[in-house]
Amino acid sequence: MLTDRAVVTEAYTVIPRGVLRDIVTSNFPGWSGTRAWILAKPVQGFATTFAQYLVEIAPGGGSPHPEPETGVQSVLFLLAGRLNLTIAGTEHHLEPGGYAYLPAGTDWSLTNPGQQPASFSWIRKPYEPAEGITPPAPFVTREQDITPTPMPDTDGTWATTRFVDPDDLAHDMHVNIVTFQPGAVIPFAETHVMEHGLYVLQGKAVYRLNDDWVEVHEGDFLWLRAFCPQACYAGGPGPFRYLLYKDVNRQIRLT
Amino acid sequence: MLTDRAVVTEAYTVIPRGVLRDIVTSNFPGWSGTRAWILAKPVQGFATTFAQYLVEIAPGGGSPHPEPETGVQSVLFLLAGRLNLTIAGTEHHLEPGGYAYLPAGTDWSLTNPGQQPASFSWIRKPYEPAEGITPPAPFVTREQDITPTPMPDTDGTWATTRFVDPDDLAHDMHVNIVTFQPGAVIPFAETHVMEHGLYVLQGKAVYRLNDDWVEVHEGDFLWLRAFCPQACYAGGPGPFRYLLYKDVNRQIRLT
Amino acid sequence: MLTDRAVVTEAYTVIPRGVLRDIVTSNFPGWSGTRAWILAKPVQGFATTFAQYLVEIAPGGGSPHPEPETGVQSVLFLLAGRLNLTIAGTEHHLEPGGYAYLPAGTDWSLTNPGQQPASFSWIRKPYEPAEGITPPAPFVTREQDITPTPMPDTDGTWATTRFVDPDDLAHDMHVNIVTFQPGAVIPFAETHVMEHGLYVLQGKAVYRLNDDWVEVHEGDFLWLRAFCPQACYAGGPGPFRYLLYKDVNRQIRLT
Amino acid sequence: MLTDRAVVTEAYTVIPRGVLRDIVTSNFPGWSGTRAWILAKPVQGFATTFAQYLVEIAPGGGSPHPEPETGVQSVLFLLAGRLNLTIAGTEHHLEPGGYAYLPAGTDWSLTNPGQQPASFSWIRKPYEPAEGITPPAPFVTREQDITPTPMPDTDGTWATTRFVDPDDLAHDMHVNIVTFQPGAVIPFAETHVMEHGLYVLQGKAVYRLNDDWVEVHEGDFLWLRAFCPQACYAGGPGPFRYLLYKDVNRQIRLT
Amino acid sequence: MLTDRAVVTEAYTVIPRGVLRDIVTSNFPGWSGTRAWILAKPVQGFATTFAQYLVEIAPGGGSPHPEPETGVQSVLFLLAGRLNLTIAGTEHHLEPGGYAYLPAGTDWSLTNPGQQPASFSWIRKPYEPAEGITPPAPFVTREQDITPTPMPDTDGTWATTRFVDPDDLAHDMHVNIVTFQPGAVIPFAETHVMEHGLYVLQGKAVYRLNDDWVEVHEGDFLWLRAFCPQACYAGGPGPFRYLLYKDVNRQIRLT
Amino acid sequence: MLTDRAVVTEAYTVIPRGVLRDIVTSNFPGWSGTRAWILAKPVQGFATTFAQYLVEIAPGGGSPHPEPETGVQSVLFLLAGRLNLTIAGTEHHLEPGGYAYLPAGTDWSLTNPGQQPASFSWIRKPYEPAEGITPPAPFVTREQDITPTPMPDTDGTWATTRFVDPDDLAHDMHVNIVTFQPGAVIPFAETHVMEHGLYVLQGKAVYRLNDDWVEVHEGDFLWLRAFCPQACYAGGPGPFRYLLYKDVNRQIRLT
Amino acid sequence: MLTDRAVVTEAYTVIPRGVLRDIVTSNFPGWSGTRAWILAKPVQGFATTFAQYLVEIAPGGGSPHPEPETGVQSVLFLLAGRLNLTIAGTEHHLEPGGYAYLPAGTDWSLTNPGQQPASFSWIRKPYEPAEGITPPAPFVTREQDITPTPMPDTDGTWATTRFVDPDDLAHDMHVNIVTFQPGAVIPFAETHVMEHGLYVLQGKAVYRLNDDWVEVHEGDFLWLRAFCPQACYAGGPGPFRYLLYKDVNRQIRLT
Amino acid sequence: MLTDRAVVTEAYTVIPRGVLRDIVTSNFPGWSGTRAWILAKPVQGFATTFAQYLVEIAPGGGSPHPEPETGVQSVLFLLAGRLNLTIAGTEHHLEPGGYAYLPAGTDWSLTNPGQQPASFSWIRKPYEPAEGITPPAPFVTREQDITPTPMPDTDGTWATTRFVDPDDLAHDMHVNIVTFQPGAVIPFAETHVMEHGLYVLQGKAVYRLNDDWVEVHEGDFLWLRAFCPQACYAGGPGPFRYLLYKDVNRQIRLT
Repeated sequence: MLTDRAVVTEAYTVIPRGVLRDIVTSNFPGWSGTRAWILAKPVQGFATTFAQYLVEIAPGGGSPHPEPETGVQSVLFLLAGRLNLTIAGTEHHLEPGGYAYLPAGTDWSLTNPGQQPASFSWIRKPYEPAEGITPPAPFVTREQDITPTPMPDTDGTWATTRFVDPDDLAHDMHVNIVTFQPGAVIPFAETHVMEHGLYVLQGKAVYRLNDDWVEVHEGDFLWLRAFCPQACYAGGPGPFRYLLYKDVNRQIRLT
Repeated sequence: MLTDRAVVTEAYTVIPRGVLRDIVTSNFPGWSGTRAWILAKPVQGFATTFAQYLVEIAPGGGSPHPEPETGVQSVLFLLAGRLNLTIAGTEHHLEPGGYAYLPAGTDWSLTNPGQQPASFSWIRKPYEPAEGITPPAPFVTREQDITPTPMPDTDGTWATTRFVDPDDLAHDMHVNIVTFQPGAVIPFAETHVMEHGLYVLQGKAVYRLNDDWVEVHEGDFLWLRAFCPQACYAGGPGPFRYLLYKDVNRQIRLT
Repeated sequence: MLTDRAVVTEAYTVIPRGVLRDIVTSNFPGWSGTRAWILAKPVQGFATTFAQYLVEIAPGGGSPHPEPETGVQSVLFLLAGRLNLTIAGTEHHLEPGGYAYLPAGTDWSLTNPGQQPASFSWIRKPYEPAEGITPPAPFVTREQDITPTPMPDTDGTWATTRFVDPDDLAHDMHVNIVTFQPGAVIPFAETHVMEHGLYVLQGKAVYRLNDDWVEVHEGDFLWLRAFCPQACYAGGPGPFRYLLYKDVNRQIRLT
Repeated sequence: MLTDRAVVTEAYTVIPRGVLRDIVTSNFPGWSGTRAWILAKPVQGFATTFAQYLVEIAPGGGSPHPEPETGVQSVLFLLAGRLNLTIAGTEHHLEPGGYAYLPAGTDWSLTNPGQQPASFSWIRKPYEPAEGITPPAPFVTREQDITPTPMPDTDGTWATTRFVDPDDLAHDMHVNIVTFQPGAVIPFAETHVMEHGLYVLQGKAVYRLNDDWVEVHEGDFLWLRAFCPQACYAGGPGPFRYLLYKDVNRQIRLT
Repeated sequence: MLTDRAVVTEAYTVIPRGVLRDIVTSNFPGWSGTRAWILAKPVQGFATTFAQYLVEIAPGGGSPHPEPETGVQSVLFLLAGRLNLTIAGTEHHLEPGGYAYLPAGTDWSLTNPGQQPASFSWIRKPYEPAEGITPPAPFVTREQDITPTPMPDTDGTWATTRFVDPDDLAHDMHVNIVTFQPGAVIPFAETHVMEHGLYVLQGKAVYRLNDDWVEVHEGDFLWLRAFCPQACYAGGPGPFRYLLYKDVNRQIRLT
Repeated sequence: MLTDRAVVTEAYTVIPRGVLRDIVTSNFPGWSGTRAWILAKPVQGFATTFAQYLVEIAPGGGSPHPEPETGVQSVLFLLAGRLNLTIAGTEHHLEPGGYAYLPAGTDWSLTNPGQQPASFSWIRKPYEPAEGITPPAPFVTREQDITPTPMPDTDGTWATTRFVDPDDLAHDMHVNIVTFQPGAVIPFAETHVMEHGLYVLQGKAVYRLNDDWVEVHEGDFLWLRAFCPQACYAGGPGPFRYLLYKDVNRQIRLT
Repeated sequence: MLTDRAVVTEAYTVIPRGVLRDIVTSNFPGWSGTRAWILAKPVQGFATTFAQYLVEIAPGGGSPHPEPETGVQSVLFLLAGRLNLTIAGTEHHLEPGGYAYLPAGTDWSLTNPGQQPASFSWIRKPYEPAEGITPPAPFVTREQDITPTPMPDTDGTWATTRFVDPDDLAHDMHVNIVTFQPGAVIPFAETHVMEHGLYVLQGKAVYRLNDDWVEVHEGDFLWLRAFCPQACYAGGPGPFRYLLYKDVNRQIRLT
Repeated sequence: MLTDRAVVTEAYTVIPRGVLRDIVTSNFPGWSGTRAWILAKPVQGFATTFAQYLVEIAPGGGSPHPEPETGVQSVLFLLAGRLNLTIAGTEHHLEPGGYAYLPAGTDWSLTNPGQQPASFSWIRKPYEPAEGITPPAPFVTREQDITPTPMPDTDGTWATTRFVDPDDLAHDMHVNIVTFQPGAVIPFAETHVMEHGLYVLQGKAVYRLNDDWVEVHEGDFLWLRAFCPQACYAGGPGPFRYLLYKDVNRQIRLT
């Protein structure tokens, strides 16, 4: 069956796991042993603040200079394999669950030191300075080292693994992990200015997007423009988890 | 029920009251004790002339320099609580119904002097100069001090509280209050170049937007791109009232 | 808001709790102190095998002869209050959870002996005899006395309270209670010849009906014609439970 | 413009005033000087309990034996002109607002004694006897002589002119007049087993039918099958009124 | 391209010329050298009063007893070739444009005496007697012998070739030819109780059916249930003409 | 994913293979060791001429009297396993590809003599006698013994295995096997009075049904009402084959 | 009825005559006695090459400097009243049918010398220079002075009044008048890179826009983005005529 | 029939062969004897990377300087006739199947030396340099000289004629020929960042575009924005082939 859930609409795009196959990968200049599925890029009238990829590096592959634009910051989240990430001359060893924040203008490089392909999410966003705010420093951490914050009034069935302090206005994007227990529900159709790239890490759910419902599961990608309503019912048996991009903490620029 | 009326379409967006909850607020740099629901911002191919927020300032909160862009004018309309607004060194005390026009380049600041949260609509628009026209001066007024202008041939069931003279071409936006008595009807599908942000202040209605009908009530926000057809039937028992943004009085720029 | 989930489609009908109000009740001849919401009746081309009501009897009300047609069997399931049910001269006292099967041709009567309104589901179906099969006898039981049967391979998250033996071909209808734990899912779109009346007893879910999704909760009624695809995601925090009618165990009649 | 609101759907039919023109009238055997617009007739899977017409009799026209079927009862409601109605030998003189109930098996005839065309609504329904119930007698009355009954909790903005006692189970149909003041609203989507023929007598409204909205005004006819959800917002300036058929007071027949 | 205009909807069916090919013909018992495209037959909930065929008889073919049901009347309209029609022992010779009305219970037979296939429209309807009305007699005529009746106020751009007197209530169906000049328009969406079979004889148009528009041309068949709205814009360069069935002149039967 | 291709529409129904699971089977009185998926039964306004099942008989199971109605004929087509079929006292041994025609009124019985479940298609239709036509006799044959008839002008890419002579008007139904080679296409949207039950035996295709496209593959069932347009593109690599029911060779009955 | 044909879609916009009322006009700086209905302006992702207005100047009103942008050319077409147009110091007197082409950078002014309002179409487009091409000079002409060019193979039923030579590449826009006789048809869905503003001058038609049909008549405005398919059937009795903007004669700019 | 498959949607555009007629051609400055159908150009929010034309040059026609923008590269693919292409002073003689790659900044010209019109596809794209990558050189080749590369696991039923090495990152676009044998299928809905212009060279198929299906054949053009899902079933009898543009090998630019 070629008919699947892939769809482009005016408010969201669904890229299901089943369409992320060999024949639709992209190559980037300056990389070796690497292929990428580009999941999101700025599209006028849709979402314009970020790009997101699923990247796979073969053993020994990588790039000495992954980021060609000086004004662009990145988040990397390792899904499988191992990665050596060098930031300003310091090497970090990432394993699955590893997470790196790379500010705009940082000098960084990446190699796969392992025997297996390394697979990671890469999110890129131009950093938007704000008056009186010092830009953030780079950091490397692990999902496993952070206690998820439960959403109030949900009895712990909905929690967020926050990689940056939500009150720290230095950051203009959040890339977090959201976890729902079976049967947990976003109780209203969240409708806000923040754009989303949503990569499902585990489990399944039926997701409300604008005025449609879509079933999603591990490996699917959802892409939402500003103001696209969204909510979900999480199915079991295990938790439903996803990596979530949103842009935050900045005034709207009009001129 | 998470299924609500929130929807994004090619010609309009509906953000119902029920989705304006804690977890979808935005923070702005340079503010204290403040959170905002961003209801509208420029989106290419949709509406591009303004931004609109519902802002809530806790007692003592506010900003010494709310507007980061010199070319941007604002209207504030106070919904609840109290606000001290200082314009070019003069302080104004706003209570519910209070309305302020702040021209581009004005120096202004805002604090909540009260014991309760202050809640207001904030509309921002880049000012578009026109040859031979002097830009408007700031002013502060109150809805309660202005007699609504009845729409001709409606027997007073449809009226507009105008905060600026419609013949004054210095202004390139109008932010007015429109009031319908029960059963009053916009008798044709208004279709014009003006964009709208429409925040419902009171009552309920069934609203025609493009080729759809949507029920709306107090606290809902409607956002219309240029040329989106619109009309309504106002329900009772009380009046149906909304704060309405539109851009006016300028030639179309083509180069 | 009058806009709700009530809808008639070619394959299913949704009658949400919110529309079951005073002004749309029916009266039946031969009853006292009683009003009913008729939820289903035979409609050609849609569902044709049964009728279903939500009935409310005031204290002291009831009927000495509720069933006017001799070929029609009934199931009663008590939701609230108390009922005295007399079958062929023997009186039974029903409390919430009480369940009665009344074969076609049975002499029965009903009164509310309590101080509160009694509310029950009443399902009526013409009995279809089959060659070599003895029709079933009446019985009265309670939901509380029956252990639910888990659905295989669901780890107990989906179970059915069966009031008759599924291998007993004397019955041509089943009225059971189906229970899902939070996050449980009907894993494929059940599509079969059996018609359904589905009255939600507890909890909430998002339900797949034909090619639509509908959110449902306690007190809603779903009505499905033969072959209408259906499935669900059960939301939490408690279980999602419904009373389910289906017609079974008979060859299709063609002449 | 030939594009109008006329539409047939699975749950309702709209026949707007503008399509009731000369070229689509019907003739009935046994009538003189008469033409009719047939607005409703039994359609399997849609509405099956009644027929409804808009009838126009020229001066001197009429029928000595209008009803060809002995089991069929009628309601006549005079919209314009004058009618002489003879029931079992007694002549009644109807003027606009005149209303007659004619039980099944009654001998009646009709003539237009005036100088202008007489225009009336004619509703026909097979009478369904019920055990222990005496069928109703004929009567003639006038809308003007009956005080409308306000709907509770609507402050008089919604009222019904009842031509028969709602507790009288002898009647198996009600043909009433419903009146809404400007801005009055049916506050939920009524969804019930009763079929409707709805002829608009005055005013305008936007009407919810199943999951659609339709604007209606004087002279339009709406036809609803059982369980079609419905509600409205009444527009002004005057009241919105309609003549409403529904079938009532009978158990569902299954065999 | 297999995608064409063929479609079944709840209110109308379109059978375009291009789908009337060899592989979808029907055979009727008691005929020789004959094949038929069945275009309409009674369908519950859709149209129920008639059947219509496009029939092709090879030279020498035909039937000694075409009508198996005694209560069924027919109209034949010859499109191409020649037919010998024997009615109660009298033979008639039909050429293109030939038209025959055959009352229920008539003894008739049909043969193709020519060298070419004979092609005709056959419409069958059960005759519905009415009290005091004598059923019609058979007749044979030709389209060419009848002057079309112009529709009032259309300046002759819309006319009907009437084969029976519209005031003759003996007939319970009309099968006429309707002719539009280029640019002529049915000015409103005709919405009436009459069912239609509409076979396009010449030209083209864009046809409004319920809330859709369909382009049609010579050889297409449209099938409309009762109350399906309809209208058209006739295209040029020649006239747009069709053979139109409708049921008329009878009271609605309810019991 | 519970979202699949199962759907009920006004003109066709799709029952994909994936929904034919244990929990939706039916039991028939008078059978042992047998369960059935009922795929089609008469539905007013949809398809009304036949019933079709996928039946599975365990080793040793079967029925001494499968057909309860004397006016009903059957076709059996064996998909897997073995069946002993006794017709009027003569036993036939069926293997996969085995096909039996059982006229109305025939005495027949069925058992599974094998060690594996036997799976077969069972199609039942009331036989419609025609004047002057002798009803057909029973027969048993095998698909393997019949040479498919190529469709003209398709270069053998489309062929039909015919089990009865298409010119034999004794039969009022055809149950044939249709075979397409990869890339073969039904070149126009077949639109005819014949109803269809279509069970896919092998391969895949994208199928046009009314104005939709549906992908289908082995084990899917399609059910089409009269006049539902249909066509397909057959995918490879092997042939696309299905068992096809249609009703044929009878005049339309109107009274 | 407020429900009309006004609609915004992704490929076209319809602004019917009935919505061009007093309350939706615009004022332009530097004009006196003038109001305008802005019908089109550049919208990203929709149409971006031009602006179009319906302008009404009261007696004595006008503008000494209508065009604020030096790179913008205009076409004026007078619908009613009189206009004095001064181009580079030379005054022209326009009457209905008067047409003026005003190149970018031209000095022009406009007054209404009459006693009645003057109403005209104003189309503005940035002029796009091309290498080796001399920009066009201004001119004033009248529709009445130009013989329409018939479209080949339409027997004169479709003709274009061309105001500039189609082979003159100096012009990068055409504003012509297109005329159809009753029943004339655009025989295929024109799909091209040219954008359209289409103002109906006379008559009526049913217009195909993308995959919709819309009825249009005198005074309606249609606005089409590049590649929007379009065609029509012209209704009678008189001709169907419109003023048509399109952009032509330039290479696509990519950098 | 003017109703065809031409359509503009938010994710794709279809321009069928039948709409590429005389009256919708474009002229380009600096060309003689040439007309073009512009099939694609950058549209914000849709596809923005390329322009594509079908160009027809009469004998003797052509252009000494076809490309007005220095940063734009081109591919030419000759469909019919002959072309003389001069690149940096060297003349190449193209026949059908001829293919030329012309880098940005190349000096080239084109003439038709034959007696018949020359017809070719012209694709233009701004070249995007990448750090460390040398831009490609021009080349001229022929489809006939290149062996198609089979897609793995398709048994040769799907193959691509590659004109540049897919591992050569100097190229930022690929214009290839894709060939499917009858019944071959793209087995999943390809969803990727690459935009497409797809011109059908031979055969037919049913094509999946976003969530629609469209039949296509020789001469049709499909235009897909980034992320538009696509797949197909190829029909026979011959192969289905198309010329396919996509943009490749570059990082997403964000600032």
